[in-house]
Amino acid sequence: MSKIRVVVAGYGNVGRGVLAALKNNPDMECVGVVSRNPERVKRSFTELPVLPMADVDAWLAALKPDIAILCGGSKDDLPVQGPALCARINTIDSFDNHSRIPEYFQAMNAAASSSGHVAVISTGWDPGIFSLERVLGNAFLPGSRAYGFYGLGEAGGLSMGHSDALRTIPGVKDARQYTHAVPEAIEKVRRGENPAFQPGDMHTRECFVVLEEGADKDRIAEAIRTMPGYFAPYRTTIHFVTQEELNAKCAGFPHDGLVVAAGTTGKGNSARVEYRCQWGSNPEATANVLVAHARAAVRMAREGRKGAFTILDIPASYFSPASREELLAKFM
Amino acid sequence: MSKIRVVVAGYGNVGRGVLAALKNNPDMECVGVVSRNPERVKRSFTELPVLPMADVDAWLAALKPDIAILCGGSKDDLPVQGPALCARINTIDSFDNHSRIPEYFQAMNAAASSSGHVAVISTGWDPGIFSLERVLGNAFLPGSRAYGFYGLGEAGGLSMGHSDALRTIPGVKDARQYTHAVPEAIEKVRRGENPAFQPGDMHTRECFVVLEEGADKDRIAEAIRTMPGYFAPYRTTIHFVTQEELNAKCAGFPHDGLVVAAGTTGKGNSARVEYRCQWGSNPEATANVLVAHARAAVRMAREGRKGAFTILDIPASYFSPASREELLAKFM
Repeated sequence: MSKIRVVVAGYGNVGRGVLAALKNNPDMECVGVVSRNPERVKRSFTELPVLPMADVDAWLAALKPDIAILCGGSKDDLPVQGPALCARINTIDSFDNHSRIPEYFQAMNAAASSSGHVAVISTGWDPGIFSLERVLGNAFLPGSRAYGFYGLGEAGGLSMGHSDALRTIPGVKDARQYTHAVPEAIEKVRRGENPAFQPGDMHTRECFVVLEEGADKDRIAEAIRTMPGYFAPYRTTIHFVTQEELNAKCAGFPHDGLVVAAGTTGKGNSARVEYRCQWGSNPEATANVLVAHARAAVRMAREGRKGAFTILDIPASYFSPASREELLAKFM
Repeated sequence: MSKIRVVVAGYGNVGRGVLAALKNNPDMECVGVVSRNPERVKRSFTELPVLPMADVDAWLAALKPDIAILCGGSKDDLPVQGPALCARINTIDSFDNHSRIPEYFQAMNAAASSSGHVAVISTGWDPGIFSLERVLGNAFLPGSRAYGFYGLGEAGGLSMGHSDALRTIPGVKDARQYTHAVPEAIEKVRRGENPAFQPGDMHTRECFVVLEEGADKDRIAEAIRTMPGYFAPYRTTIHFVTQEELNAKCAGFPHDGLVVAAGTTGKGNSARVEYRCQWGSNPEATANVLVAHARAAVRMAREGRKGAFTILDIPASYFSPASREELLAKFM
């Protein structure tokens, strides 16, 4: 059987992760990268064609892909690229602005349905695997709620969104934000209390900030602590460090998380389910999940399905390279 | 929308759990119990009709069920009841003899396909949720293996199969077997070593045995330790206790387990996923999962699907009572 031909659309951290992940999936191959800035990407490697993303006709004709994995950002890239591209080819993306997923789903569903393509949206580990585990937790333990925690290890989990938010403050030269789960909050959930948390009850935030020369430390600390949504609701610790200290301490993109639901079965017997993940590289984790979804999307397209889908709409067997016989014999 | 009408077929521990679980799912209702021994079951409750399982025409006509949840045992009941019943009505079962699942799937698929029914087989927590997590672990971390461990807590997990095996030994009046995971084995997997284990490397077995009067303790201990498959491959501890001690120590059906897969992403970044469950009552846990699958099976049947399916063939959204809009807005 011929390999699934994948185009990587966008070459940032996730795009690099997708190229690496595809090498571990022998039933798939990367046939090229498309980018808004192909000259920049061409400096990174020479073994694959790199074409301008906007020339869709050209790269569809040249690369004959089965699917495009969209690796752009959720804020500015995907809301534009997503509907435009899924009108031309099957797509997968990791759109992760949770509150706007229903709206993004509508746009993608309209474009993919009318053009006859499959568009799997908002996958990775959260949204993605965690969404799946939240649904399973609630379905198998009715009446309980599934909670998500992030940054359970000592170092916490690196949040790119919060790091970016820190860097928008005038006087901040560079910054990283680590999220920490509150252990007592996890224990409350594990005990089956199904508590009504405020966001600040579940997580704390730790910032490592490099100042520009002459910046006002106190004013910046105040700006961080009062930033609505990002930091104001949380207990926030701020460390001012040098660029060298930041580089030494904050290498890589580690992140981790937990979905947990607890309640009772029958006449009050305790019941608890937990899904835990730990990633040395957050963007590579997202990339691995995207690639498995690309396999699923191509299968769905070959079955004549069309429109937008999420991980909640896809049977697990579609993610696996194993045959039905192998799944029944070795995985059940 | 009218409720899903469920018949419970078989009234043992799992059947009792299904009745309890259905009360927590407002979109479903139990319309009756069918049993090989309805007189025995009628002594347990009066609020529901109880009919002889063999009179299929009669209970289909009287109860008008959408689906039957088959709660019989995997050894003798389901291989006979399953194909007979899924030829008449949609079914769910927890057939858990892992090595015979492919064969059972074939039989159920033939009967359900030709009669136009949906038969979801082999669900619960293992096979069931754990099967799903094994497939997801392997799909998202290609090259890693997903391992299952049981009995991680101090008390271990009560294995009904092994308890039954102990009770077949002449001179044994009563017995319980607790499975314990080997912590060092879990740590090996967590470190990403993907080790090649023998069964005895992963678990140990602890037996609580009540002897009949005059039974030969040493002969029975020897019979346990050398029992092929069940105990011979494992480090096995045996406690001889009185019936009172057994009853006091071994109340309920607690069990728990872990699916874990670990490897790397990209250029060697560590990656680990784990699914952990802890159940105060093993049969009630199975029952909760069966009930969510009954919802899924009825939906599939209403879409015109037919044949045998496993949890690997069913999208997560089908298990949930929530609408697509609610799933997109609250669970993604």
